[in-house]
Amino acid sequence: MDTPTPARSVGAVTPQRATFSEPLQLRCGRSIAGYELVYETYGSLNADRSNAILVCHALNASHHVAGFYANDPDNVGWWDNIIGPGKPVDTDRFFVIGVNNLGGCFGSTGPMSIDPATGRPYGASFPLVTVEDWVAAQARLADHLGIERFAAVMGGSLGAMQSLSWTRQFPDRLGHALVIACAPNLSAQNIAFNEVARQAILTDPEFHGGDYYAHGATPVRGLRVARMVGHITYLSDDAMASKFGRQLRNGSIGYGFEPEFQIESYLRYQGGKFAEYFDANTYLRITKALDYFDPAFESGGDLAKALATARAAFLVVSFTTDWRFAPERSREIVQALLRNQLDVTYGEIDAPHGHDAFLLDDPRYHALVRAYLERIDAEVAGGVR
Amino acid sequence: MDTPTPARSVGAVTPQRATFSEPLQLRCGRSIAGYELVYETYGSLNADRSNAILVCHALNASHHVAGFYANDPDNVGWWDNIIGPGKPVDTDRFFVIGVNNLGGCFGSTGPMSIDPATGRPYGASFPLVTVEDWVAAQARLADHLGIERFAAVMGGSLGAMQSLSWTRQFPDRLGHALVIACAPNLSAQNIAFNEVARQAILTDPEFHGGDYYAHGATPVRGLRVARMVGHITYLSDDAMASKFGRQLRNGSIGYGFEPEFQIESYLRYQGGKFAEYFDANTYLRITKALDYFDPAFESGGDLAKALATARAAFLVVSFTTDWRFAPERSREIVQALLRNQLDVTYGEIDAPHGHDAFLLDDPRYHALVRAYLERIDAEVAGGVR
Repeated sequence: MDTPTPARSVGAVTPQRATFSEPLQLRCGRSIAGYELVYETYGSLNADRSNAILVCHALNASHHVAGFYANDPDNVGWWDNIIGPGKPVDTDRFFVIGVNNLGGCFGSTGPMSIDPATGRPYGASFPLVTVEDWVAAQARLADHLGIERFAAVMGGSLGAMQSLSWTRQFPDRLGHALVIACAPNLSAQNIAFNEVARQAILTDPEFHGGDYYAHGATPVRGLRVARMVGHITYLSDDAMASKFGRQLRNGSIGYGFEPEFQIESYLRYQGGKFAEYFDANTYLRITKALDYFDPAFESGGDLAKALATARAAFLVVSFTTDWRFAPERSREIVQALLRNQLDVTYGEIDAPHGHDAFLLDDPRYHALVRAYLERIDAEVAGGVR
Repeated sequence: MDTPTPARSVGAVTPQRATFSEPLQLRCGRSIAGYELVYETYGSLNADRSNAILVCHALNASHHVAGFYANDPDNVGWWDNIIGPGKPVDTDRFFVIGVNNLGGCFGSTGPMSIDPATGRPYGASFPLVTVEDWVAAQARLADHLGIERFAAVMGGSLGAMQSLSWTRQFPDRLGHALVIACAPNLSAQNIAFNEVARQAILTDPEFHGGDYYAHGATPVRGLRVARMVGHITYLSDDAMASKFGRQLRNGSIGYGFEPEFQIESYLRYQGGKFAEYFDANTYLRITKALDYFDPAFESGGDLAKALATARAAFLVVSFTTDWRFAPERSREIVQALLRNQLDVTYGEIDAPHGHDAFLLDDPRYHALVRAYLERIDAEVAGGVR
């Protein structure tokens, strides 16, 4: 295209559903007999099926990555600011796919789904799925869509762990991996926060050992606390200070346990909203998938060795105030890739927002993603790869 | 003393009890009719009553600061490593006092105590007490002990906030304030962590609105989660990484919700232990006292103005890896003191342990406290002040 398109929304979108009847072997040793994945696509697959980008979601997101629903126009995709016609991930050029992962709670088979073997929700019996399992399931979705090779696989945070895992599990099936706000594994502190969240849920009397559906119950209190603690780790100390500081809701202290500071109201609101739509069993499993992710484990901690079979080119992006997955963790990934002589672009964005920066419309960050993908586009168009 | 004494324990100690029948007016607008404070003392008060040091406790500690109990020799005071004969706070020279604050759960009047007006535990009706209230109650204890003026008031974390408040509330009643691992107020992030802890407790069904004693219940689950989240903020990311890293308890992943990583076991253990001995109503109130502390609030955020009436000399100490109350927060205090031309010694200790460093036996930190107090001792002995 010669003249740049003004950025706009992909418009109204419709989720689709793919059914897989072949059992999927999982890392935990169990297998799942059959499953469904819900996904959305934006843009058009080109004739040689070479322009597809898979977007992997993080902890609490879904297949609804861009656009909106005709019957629910306020329900805008979680990465809509970066994906659309004329946007950094340009759907005039790329065919973009969002998918709700296995074990999710937005339509793909997960703990809330009916187990065909029992006729009841899986609940506690749903297996613990890993990043590697998600990628294996995503590869089957690619088969289903007739996509042998992705132009790129991209994600932020836990989504970026999936991008990274794609380059190990299916090195020939992607040209580029976009690894944004990532870490090669969770630190003790990261695991600790996850464990607090899990304990809040697991010890909620309404959890009923994970089979709360049968009791008509929901561990709302546990989910709220879990989300509150998670939320703190997504924001930088500075971002919280500038957004909330010590602002009081009513100008003075009330000497009670109702919310007094704005930050308290904000967290309670976020926690409450989350508990309304997210499934506790899914939350528990996603935090475990985060804890387990550690590609270098089998090579004794040698990440370069773990990534030795990767063939993709990489864009790695970190954010200076991200204390959940700090830039130094991204640099570990970059160094491991460089030791393998891989093609790596690394951007460390000076952004104030903490981990959440990967979801926000930071001009330097978006410009970097745009420029990187324009290069892929040229390769796709010119048939370089 | 000419030859240094080898450092040793103060030995077996016995808590004492002081009863105050005058009502105490509290910042919340309510007053408490009468109250008791439990305290311990180490060393001897000199003839002119000029060698007393008051030690203020932080979130979960008590009056049991040094020594041990004859019938429970493993129960060693929480700051025993710094207080004793020949130790940095040398009880051969100083008369040291530890006191359980009003609202506490170790013997001083608090939510667990019987309200004489009803014959039942105060529970939810116990007022929200502040740092200023604690200091006012401590001043009455000083009166009771015949101490007009402390050689020093010292504390770490929330205890340091009390030291700082002493210099504002009773500027003539202390010679020195030791303000260790402190902040002039809580940041939005600090408040956020406290609010998570409170929500875990307040929403525990066993909390019964704070009157759980009457139900023979304890909000154990909430207390455990509260302590776990608190504990994360006391340790540095690096300390957790070097102490626990990603170590697995059994060498491999179990794909379940039992503790798998060492850090999970550690946190659950800490949470469980805490829930056995700490009172939830006290915990709620102490986190609120932390949130409320903000001496500069009344002067529109001008900390120098808030400290304009202080006359003490100061030792301010911070620790490089403390991300709860980072060194920059201590520097705010130092700058405010310097703007008032006060005598300030500031030490920023390069310690790996995070906020908990103030409780640990770091040689540079202890040497600094020792050297500072030796100077006071000279003043006391020489009658400088």
